[in-house]
Amino acid sequence: MIETPYLLFLGDAPDPLAAKVAQGIKDWRPENCVGQLRMEGCMADMKLPDMTLEEAKAAGAKTLVIGVANRGGKISQAWKKVLVGALEEGFDLASGLHNLLRNEPDLVAVAKACGRALHDVRVPEVEYPIANGEKRRGKRVLAVGTDCSVGKMYTALALDKAMREMGMKSTFRATGQTGILITGDGVPLDAVIADFMAGSIEWLTPDNDADHWDIIEGQGSLFHVSFSGVTLALIHGGQPDALILCHEPTRSHMRGLPGYALPSLEDLRDLSLQMAKVANPDCRVVGVSINTQHMGEAEAATYCEAIEAQFGLSTVDPFRHGAARLAEALAAF
Amino acid sequence: MIETPYLLFLGDAPDPLAAKVAQGIKDWRPENCVGQLRMEGCMADMKLPDMTLEEAKAAGAKTLVIGVANRGGKISQAWKKVLVGALEEGFDLASGLHNLLRNEPDLVAVAKACGRALHDVRVPEVEYPIANGEKRRGKRVLAVGTDCSVGKMYTALALDKAMREMGMKSTFRATGQTGILITGDGVPLDAVIADFMAGSIEWLTPDNDADHWDIIEGQGSLFHVSFSGVTLALIHGGQPDALILCHEPTRSHMRGLPGYALPSLEDLRDLSLQMAKVANPDCRVVGVSINTQHMGEAEAATYCEAIEAQFGLSTVDPFRHGAARLAEALAAF
Repeated sequence: MIETPYLLFLGDAPDPLAAKVAQGIKDWRPENCVGQLRMEGCMADMKLPDMTLEEAKAAGAKTLVIGVANRGGKISQAWKKVLVGALEEGFDLASGLHNLLRNEPDLVAVAKACGRALHDVRVPEVEYPIANGEKRRGKRVLAVGTDCSVGKMYTALALDKAMREMGMKSTFRATGQTGILITGDGVPLDAVIADFMAGSIEWLTPDNDADHWDIIEGQGSLFHVSFSGVTLALIHGGQPDALILCHEPTRSHMRGLPGYALPSLEDLRDLSLQMAKVANPDCRVVGVSINTQHMGEAEAATYCEAIEAQFGLSTVDPFRHGAARLAEALAAF
Repeated sequence: MIETPYLLFLGDAPDPLAAKVAQGIKDWRPENCVGQLRMEGCMADMKLPDMTLEEAKAAGAKTLVIGVANRGGKISQAWKKVLVGALEEGFDLASGLHNLLRNEPDLVAVAKACGRALHDVRVPEVEYPIANGEKRRGKRVLAVGTDCSVGKMYTALALDKAMREMGMKSTFRATGQTGILITGDGVPLDAVIADFMAGSIEWLTPDNDADHWDIIEGQGSLFHVSFSGVTLALIHGGQPDALILCHEPTRSHMRGLPGYALPSLEDLRDLSLQMAKVANPDCRVVGVSINTQHMGEAEAATYCEAIEAQFGLSTVDPFRHGAARLAEALAAF
């Protein structure tokens, strides 16, 4: 649907986490990324060539992907000059933000005049059902986190890759804009109407072969007051057989919530499992994924070993160590 | 906004619970209800005079309120003849269903031709913020349930009434279509976009006097896999200081989920309190509300006494006994 390759737009990202959409595409589909376009003050960097619109066009880029999100998911007025220029230069636009490209009259007018497409991957295009809670065939694994943006999507994508390399039947099931931009389909769960959240996840992870695993992309955290409801719908709609705990050990508080401390991994394990057992009494925690991006190599190894000893669960940073040991835990399930 | 009095449309309700919207309006604003209109096979009865459209019009009714919901909240094709006839007879229509009156071309055409209004009270008309988790002044109480449709709205409305009678500062905060139809405003939480659920409840229950209580209408249940995410957003957005546990003791399984047993009141107490303490560490459980509609008088009294002894919390059926003892528990908070 969306023409590749991309020019990744990082805008005026206030920090690297704000550009996690771009980072995900770059890490999992580097072959689709020609370069990056950054505005003044941008604090994110994909380590791709910085390009003007003209340079990217000459290098073959077809679509400018908005790879940055500000609080609330709005299309910033500060970006408009670049977006209009991209359409005029011959790019399509793709976005996973809450505010839609198609609802910006200036972008719609220019896109129409230039014969360009506006892709809003966040908009649900399916009438999801109300969840019925019925047991489905096949197996499902879900990554749950102590906080938002701790590496749940990375864990799921790395696990999917490792399982395929081991010859296991596996499908990555995207639930957010980045995952959808990477895989081409999924449920934009953040944008689903409240009553249909769990049903959308049942729809996304239907009956399958008994030895097939859906790797469901996690969202939010049960402990993050802004988005916890989305997380619980994912747990109850997904009916996971297996959970993987995700954590970033250097956070001083919950993302965006200065007054809120992170829960412990024990808290995450116990509460997630209790919640998951409402929908699937046989659910088990099978591994731990640590995001060690702010740690050195030795520190990261020591930390993972300590968690593995404490919890008796395979513990890795999938970005640093790969996810083979998590895949093995599922193979042994 | 919506012209009163109403004719309550019960349609082809398969059971009394399906008509809980009509029941709520009738119980809390009986002065607004001229009569009821039932189709063949309707299994609900508000004990109001059965009227044709013509009879209700002659009796002064201004608006036909759809007081019935089927699974998924759709506007049934079987209802269309009545709805079109009502518009032609001179009624406005009001609905809290997911599917909107304004999206039904036949109704829109007839309403326009007849100069009548279509009220969709379920549609959010505010751009809600993302929840920020900041502590707000004033106090808040939330009713949480072992299941859906166990009496959370009734408990909140009865508590609001009892608190006002005791001279306390109290506001009922509607979060569902019935509550909104009763009070004229609120947040249609079931229809809010996932990411903004908790923020909509922060918006609904803003800073207030230190001795003012918001009585927040509960939705769903943490243990109901179809709607649990909505419930958790309500707990984390509402930051309740006090919880009231709601239960209907005669259910054989979770509503709409034949394979799911109800949790115990202990489970509800422990999980709700754990979840609420994420947003407000000082939250306490202050009372229990039992829906004894399927019990006799003596059985109901015995059951409530047993729960009160077991939990050490004021326990009443607000419909049968009033909510004064729950209001006293909050006054002593």
